Amino acid sequence: MEIKVLKNIFSSNEARAEEIKKLLAEKKVFMANFLSSPGSGKTTIADRMISGLKGKYGMAVIEGDIATTNDAKKLQKHDIPIIQIETALFQRDCHLESMWIRKCLDDFDLDKTDFVIIENIGNLVCPAEFDLGEDERIVVLSVTEGEDKPVKYPMMFNSSQVALVNKVDLLPHLDYNLQEALDNIRRVNPKMRIFQVSAKTGEGFDEFLKYLDKRIAQKKSS
Amino acid sequence: MEIKVLKNIFSSNEARAEEIKKLLAEKKVFMANFLSSPGSGKTTIADRMISGLKGKYGMAVIEGDIATTNDAKKLQKHDIPIIQIETALFQRDCHLESMWIRKCLDDFDLDKTDFVIIENIGNLVCPAEFDLGEDERIVVLSVTEGEDKPVKYPMMFNSSQVALVNKVDLLPHLDYNLQEALDNIRRVNPKMRIFQVSAKTGEGFDEFLKYLDKRIAQKKSS
Repeated sequence: MEIKVLKNIFSSNEARAEEIKKLLAEKKVFMANFLSSPGSGKTTIADRMISGLKGKYGMAVIEGDIATTNDAKKLQKHDIPIIQIETALFQRDCHLESMWIRKCLDDFDLDKTDFVIIENIGNLVCPAEFDLGEDERIVVLSVTEGEDKPVKYPMMFNSSQVALVNKVDLLPHLDYNLQEALDNIRRVNPKMRIFQVSAKTGEGFDEFLKYLDKRIAQKKSS
Repeated sequence: MEIKVLKNIFSSNEARAEEIKKLLAEKKVFMANFLSSPGSGKTTIADRMISGLKGKYGMAVIEGDIATTNDAKKLQKHDIPIIQIETALFQRDCHLESMWIRKCLDDFDLDKTDFVIIENIGNLVCPAEFDLGEDERIVVLSVTEGEDKPVKYPMMFNSSQVALVNKVDLLPHLDYNLQEALDNIRRVNPKMRIFQVSAKTGEGFDEFLKYLDKRIAQKKSS
């Protein structure tokens, strides 16, 4: 019986994700789902992305958190549409589901939007199982988290297309084997596109912005 | 229907946790459940605890991971009983359940054990909902994770008795407001006992070991 119920949850999520994919294709909107463990720097990354792409593209943000609107507040200065989903208000959920994303998309003016940023709940496990209809999953791995996270959380790294290795400004202060971390990412996902960045200092970020710019433009002209 | 199934899962977990509590009371064994997000340093903490208490107490370790036996391997040198639970072998679970802990305890010689260390899955969400029958929950918060994690993951910090603020050796290299982090912990849980440590350098660790020593001895003489 348990398995049946879980199947129902997943299949209803999948169905809604398919709807979202159609909607985004029709509106030519690129949507990226950012995933990571807590505190890896997703909000700082969003901040820098928005600054870097503002003026060129219409953007909107969906912030997922169990509690607080802290992250949304940090991005308010950009004056773009932001919706904060506090999952504790629902059922203390550890991931975002496509049903909520659909509601957020209905709230945005998609004719004026080219890029939707989803900041998922800080959790390397459960969010991996829920398709949100995104064009791309971008997993953020902070160099303070240890080299073996990709092999310990394989589904997360397996189901993502891009990895941001963040906080590289801290490398001189850590016993961190960057090559081992990169090898572990490739072991789990040989096709992963990897960017080494510091969202704080901006190091390596231009290359990632160029990539995003290309992906958003591709979708826009699709 | 969904709620009914969830209730069943939780209530069977609770029932098993009660059994574990009785067993540990009878055998006078102290068990601590270590929780945190991925890469906060739980294994390095376990390593230092075992080194610090070896000779004085009989110890055993239960390692929870979705995949890999990396953490268990890191602790093998101590030559104490270690069981690695790879949850992916079951159903890709994002938390440990009391049923599995019970099986591990049956495998240990509890007459020769004073302290059982559980290293839970790296996840600040789901493990908080599962009582493992432990005497104490110890949440680890790395200073690289940002100051607001306690308010963003309130259940985890609410249901723990001890917080280890780890990686304080990195503070000089971070824009981290330690006072704000401590205030946030206390906001969510005014009774939390907090230790500021670096499991890597050993800074602040003696005080935590003294606390553990007292708690294990209390249980032993109960």
